[in-house]
Amino acid sequence: MRVLGIDPGLTRCGMGVVEGSVGRPLRLVDVNVLRTSSDLPVPQRLVTIEKGVDAWLDEHRPDAVAVERVFARSDVSTVMGTAQASGIAMVCAARRGLPVALHTPSEVKAAVSGNGRATKAQVGTMVTRILRLDAMPKPADAADALALAITHIWRGGAQARIDAAVAGARQTQATRRRYA
Amino acid sequence: MRVLGIDPGLTRCGMGVVEGSVGRPLRLVDVNVLRTSSDLPVPQRLVTIEKGVDAWLDEHRPDAVAVERVFARSDVSTVMGTAQASGIAMVCAARRGLPVALHTPSEVKAAVSGNGRATKAQVGTMVTRILRLDAMPKPADAADALALAITHIWRGGAQARIDAAVAGARQTQATRRRYA
Repeated sequence: MRVLGIDPGLTRCGMGVVEGSVGRPLRLVDVNVLRTSSDLPVPQRLVTIEKGVDAWLDEHRPDAVAVERVFARSDVSTVMGTAQASGIAMVCAARRGLPVALHTPSEVKAAVSGNGRATKAQVGTMVTRILRLDAMPKPADAADALALAITHIWRGGAQARIDAAVAGARQTQATRRRYA
Repeated sequence: MRVLGIDPGLTRCGMGVVEGSVGRPLRLVDVNVLRTSSDLPVPQRLVTIEKGVDAWLDEHRPDAVAVERVFARSDVSTVMGTAQASGIAMVCAARRGLPVALHTPSEVKAAVSGNGRATKAQVGTMVTRILRLDAMPKPADAADALALAITHIWRGGAQARIDAAVAGARQTQATRRRYA
């Protein structure tokens, strides 16, 4: 299974591709941080992010995309841009029919380090160990994107399958209601 | 000048097209509300919004797009979806090279009613009068989208031109610095 993890952001958007399966060593395929200048208008910055994500989907052909879930209570100065960037990332994946999963920062921290309140440095250290890298991926957005991809593989894509089943069941119910 | 106003939202996304110029009667071209079911996963809902906005850009060929500016302090339960939908709307316009302007709710209220704290009903009434409609556009998201388009025309697209000039000047400065 090949997963693209995306740590969304307007100024820095981390993207990391990891390959592997539960119980086997994972492999780093590629990692990058998309940057857009705060001097540019937001619509242009979002288009740059869209192009960057699309280019990676073309190049790396992941089986699934894992995006960090953004909360309204996050840092107010950046949360709108982060939410918009996450929306773009989700659309890029979903319009290709790729499964998209959202993982919270504490789910990711817990998955890679066993501690839902781990520091950025701990997450970076664990990502470096898990992927057997020579150095810690930098900046933190790169390590976070890889941690998201690792989390998704280790959770076995189970959540995405549960969500799909629930959505399917709901749709069946709705169809039944319509034709009842 | 033909403007597409977008009142972004995941559950209801208002879209209104208005044609005209400052000092002349304005004309309603079309108005609609895109709806997506909260039973569906967010990525699918965003793809539906993207398709709807793209279809309208194809059909109505506006000269500019005006999107409501979303604030982090808005209603916490819906603000993430609203921000994501606004990001999609901006990208749809910007990747076609269309100018995108953001107007705050109070700018829109002040433009159409003279009062930055006008109620939804007042905005609806004024939109109905300004466009000489037989009935108030419903739901409120439809009226709000039209109010955004009206605001944009009445501001003469001035803000977009100022933003473009500022971005241009900054870019020139950056180029100068690079080659200095």
